[in-house]
Amino acid sequence: MPNLVSISGFKDLSEAMKDVAEMVEEQLVELLPSTDAPEQRLMDAINHGTLDGGKRLRPFLVMSGADLFKVDRLCSIRVACAVEMVPCSSLIHDDLPAMDDAETRRGKPSVHKEFDEATAILAGDALLTYAFEILAHPSTHADPNVRCSLVAELAKASGAQGMVAGQMLDLIAETEKFDLGQITRLQRMKTGDLIAFACQAGAILGRASSQDRYALHAYAHDLGLAFQIADDLLDIEGDADLVGKPTGRDEDAGKATFVTILGPERARAQAGLLSQQAIQHLARFEERADLLREIARFVVERRN
Amino acid sequence: MPNLVSISGFKDLSEAMKDVAEMVEEQLVELLPSTDAPEQRLMDAINHGTLDGGKRLRPFLVMSGADLFKVDRLCSIRVACAVEMVPCSSLIHDDLPAMDDAETRRGKPSVHKEFDEATAILAGDALLTYAFEILAHPSTHADPNVRCSLVAELAKASGAQGMVAGQMLDLIAETEKFDLGQITRLQRMKTGDLIAFACQAGAILGRASSQDRYALHAYAHDLGLAFQIADDLLDIEGDADLVGKPTGRDEDAGKATFVTILGPERARAQAGLLSQQAIQHLARFEERADLLREIARFVVERRN
Repeated sequence: MPNLVSISGFKDLSEAMKDVAEMVEEQLVELLPSTDAPEQRLMDAINHGTLDGGKRLRPFLVMSGADLFKVDRLCSIRVACAVEMVPCSSLIHDDLPAMDDAETRRGKPSVHKEFDEATAILAGDALLTYAFEILAHPSTHADPNVRCSLVAELAKASGAQGMVAGQMLDLIAETEKFDLGQITRLQRMKTGDLIAFACQAGAILGRASSQDRYALHAYAHDLGLAFQIADDLLDIEGDADLVGKPTGRDEDAGKATFVTILGPERARAQAGLLSQQAIQHLARFEERADLLREIARFVVERRN
Repeated sequence: MPNLVSISGFKDLSEAMKDVAEMVEEQLVELLPSTDAPEQRLMDAINHGTLDGGKRLRPFLVMSGADLFKVDRLCSIRVACAVEMVPCSSLIHDDLPAMDDAETRRGKPSVHKEFDEATAILAGDALLTYAFEILAHPSTHADPNVRCSLVAELAKASGAQGMVAGQMLDLIAETEKFDLGQITRLQRMKTGDLIAFACQAGAILGRASSQDRYALHAYAHDLGLAFQIADDLLDIEGDADLVGKPTGRDEDAGKATFVTILGPERARAQAGLLSQQAIQHLARFEERADLLREIARFVVERRN
């Protein structure tokens, strides 16, 4: 596997992200179940919703975090893939007519469009389940305490006290007026908790000190909010072709977001501030955390 | 917690099942997350789909299996609840209009009817996630190897190589003609694998010998098939009020089942044979496995 750190120092961020995205893609192909039995349709739907997708930001955070503690790449890549399966499974369900009713995802038909709704529901369930199976497997780490910790923390970040609760709040926010505090809480749960887990997974794998873990948690907290504000800005100002999904949806739905509450300028300033704050939390890791610093700049500057 | 074994020997099966169902209900209330925040709607939907439900056959198998190895009841009840969350989450999704389109479940409105489709999709996802969180938690067993094993085995039984794959096959069977071998494989995956996990979970908790585990696996294999054939018979011959769901659906859909392929008489004989075979696998546990023997008789004799 290529190293994210070249001999002369850190690679360019986009190059490093491309490297990780490729590694993740390869590993996902290897990990995702396959069969020659009739249920291959389920595997095809899972593959459709998982492969060839996105920036792989969360896997990148897992890999960069794990590199801080010199974790074996064979371990961190498995965790990176497991973490990625959770938002992929969630997006398969999100795109369903009963939820966001999205016909496309990253420029191709959403899973229920390519297959059918029932298959999409099942594919999301199977993919979510598989994330935990991978983490619990001995190949992920020799220490079963580490594996249990990964399972428990990923579940917490993903379930009724994390991502899914955030999605529930997001639905409620369509009809109820949320204030800035409520929106912040919603977004922390909906996207922040999983980003926080991705940032800390390397520390769990590397059995890092609680101070190191705390620093990464604080970094992740600010990063997650900055990411979400940038997302809201892209929804209003972005180019749908670049963003890869329809824009202006939240505005059309009259839904409160960071941008509708703060206005675009204050929102942009806030995202910048959070990005700087995130970087400050990384001081203890010195230049070893340069990629994480880069990513904190990237999330607020990205155009898609 | 009441003991399943009274001083004078085994309690009556129905009494023992009632005891376990009550214990499970109490423990589920304790385990399921609750909040006073707006996302309580999600918790309400989870509770609606989980509490006050069914015979709790799988938890009963977990508890009875765990008793063979004198597992601490505080451990086995957690595993029993985690195992029960998987079919509950799956039924929430199964009942959706895109799948079975069932308006009621156990005599009350299905989750998407009581709430809405989006909430039902999220509730299923959160509940499934929570099963793994519970298993990975230190309270489930002091040995993290045992906890990892439980997570990995439950995931395997539930996901793309187990229950969900069986559901996919079930959908395919609506349009393709399946033969007896294919139906057997479908049912093993759809219901058998999770029953097999429930039967073996106690052996995992009790770090039983591989021979003991194998015996329970063989028992579970036959029990699972017997259970499913009985279910197919109930679908054709049962009283909808007693069964608690509409009957005759498979027949109406022209779907191959054990009963449509074998005919009711041979199906009944086959279920009886499987039940006897299941009991034979328990010989090594002597009278300690009497409840498991009772349950093997019960699944083929039940009327609902």
